[in-house]
Amino acid sequence: MQLVVAGTMALDTIETPFGRAERVVGGAATYIALAASYFTRPIGVVSIIGTDYPSEMQIELERRGVDLSGVVRHLTRPSFFWAGRYHADMQSRDTLETQLNVLEEFPQTVPLSYQSASFLLLGNLDPKLQKRIYDQISPRPLVVLLDTMNFWIHGSREALEEIIAEVDILSLNDEEVRQLAGDYSLRRCARTLLAKGPRYLLVKKGENGALLFSREGETYFFPAYPLEEVFDPTGAGDTFAGALMGYIASQGELSIEVLKEAIVQGTVLASMCVERFGPEALLSASREEIERRREQLIRMSHFIRVPT
Amino acid sequence: MQLVVAGTMALDTIETPFGRAERVVGGAATYIALAASYFTRPIGVVSIIGTDYPSEMQIELERRGVDLSGVVRHLTRPSFFWAGRYHADMQSRDTLETQLNVLEEFPQTVPLSYQSASFLLLGNLDPKLQKRIYDQISPRPLVVLLDTMNFWIHGSREALEEIIAEVDILSLNDEEVRQLAGDYSLRRCARTLLAKGPRYLLVKKGENGALLFSREGETYFFPAYPLEEVFDPTGAGDTFAGALMGYIASQGELSIEVLKEAIVQGTVLASMCVERFGPEALLSASREEIERRREQLIRMSHFIRVPT
Repeated sequence: MQLVVAGTMALDTIETPFGRAERVVGGAATYIALAASYFTRPIGVVSIIGTDYPSEMQIELERRGVDLSGVVRHLTRPSFFWAGRYHADMQSRDTLETQLNVLEEFPQTVPLSYQSASFLLLGNLDPKLQKRIYDQISPRPLVVLLDTMNFWIHGSREALEEIIAEVDILSLNDEEVRQLAGDYSLRRCARTLLAKGPRYLLVKKGENGALLFSREGETYFFPAYPLEEVFDPTGAGDTFAGALMGYIASQGELSIEVLKEAIVQGTVLASMCVERFGPEALLSASREEIERRREQLIRMSHFIRVPT
Repeated sequence: MQLVVAGTMALDTIETPFGRAERVVGGAATYIALAASYFTRPIGVVSIIGTDYPSEMQIELERRGVDLSGVVRHLTRPSFFWAGRYHADMQSRDTLETQLNVLEEFPQTVPLSYQSASFLLLGNLDPKLQKRIYDQISPRPLVVLLDTMNFWIHGSREALEEIIAEVDILSLNDEEVRQLAGDYSLRRCARTLLAKGPRYLLVKKGENGALLFSREGETYFFPAYPLEEVFDPTGAGDTFAGALMGYIASQGELSIEVLKEAIVQGTVLASMCVERFGPEALLSASREEIERRREQLIRMSHFIRVPT
């Protein structure tokens, strides 16, 4: 398996100032796998779904080179469910409801065909589970990316630090970075977190773009694609990570140059994701539009001749 | 006069999580003139000071090619005074006290030697006063930059729109842009505001950098210089505008290429300003450090080969 992805597959009810969508397909692994499928295959998914996860989406994923042999389907219980409401700024949100449902029985083992994966994306899950999945890939994958959230930073810091020590790329939003490092200055936070193991720290800042810090002390800045309208931010971070890892997997190795291009691809796919409800836009993104946005992003940022 | 600057000259009492500075020299025109003096001279200032504005700063400004013949010194009343407290994030702040003092008698006329200025920077003031100063420069300056604040957006919208219609560059922070345009999407806000007259809209976003929108529909993104520590953000926006206009004046014309380099210079000087209390850092910024930060900023942003 080229790329293995672990994360939730869920149903979401989303309220935004633009409207409400009931029980749309969601979950980190859904967004990650869809976004990564634009760049690489085969992609294996470790997850669990319930009786209500639509078979149309399973067929769609398989059509895109996503292998679902690592996904358990529970016979009687519904899928993980999340309901949330976005504020007018489209950055902050309230969680209205979380039903773990099948999530308590998330698979602890990885199919044999996944165990030689070259690339591993550990989406937001209990860090103990992330570590267990990581430990089953042998030899160690070429590149491992980790995502997490405030819930684990506060509640499972020890386990989280254990898996962080193993990964190549730590991908968090600015608030999570500050919580995890216990500091305000992102530059100091980066030093603290990179000392724990990762080669790269990626700080996602929503409409304010992203910062990449390397263990060698380099910093790179990436703008977000300037949209007229953010329709539904759900899944943007997972789409970003999925496209990023998909691109890295397509290149077969991790260098700073590969990672920079991967971040641009992640930014582009995320900008498309948020223009529709749920993963809808990821089902129909065109190569032409991806390339158009990529070139625009680069033009926006290369504002001055490079110093010689 | 090459560049004329209108704005307050004040004393500020500043509280930050790092400490407190009592009655340090401040005001938009002080920061603007100091920053601009790194790039161009002579610079003429239109302002008013009270009995307590230190003569040392007047001497320092004059030493840097700043002409103070447009500055009225009130014989009995104290200078405009502002006291504020910054929160831990160093972006938001509370105003603790504002004493207008001499500000009510701000000069309505511009010295004869300023009236043929090529470049005009209208710092945050009553928009009626900004318009009156603008009207006294003849022929019209080559480039006019306008700054304002939420107080005038809410209280003097009509007068503000009248002066906005005349300027080349409108420089605001993201919150002010949204208030003035009455919309959330910065891209749509830019279209609205550029339709009112300015050729360029500059959106300042503090630690998240700046966006430049042109009337021709171009967008450019500029990162902030990634500091380990922001010590005192007071004057950062004015320093940014001052360095930016100083650089434009040094080039003698406004093109998109000149403006992009000007924004980088503004970003660099602002990053130095916030590392010390008040305008202290602007009194001793070295050419070497300015050039070093400039190159680092460019390297940070040029993440990928430019599309051909």
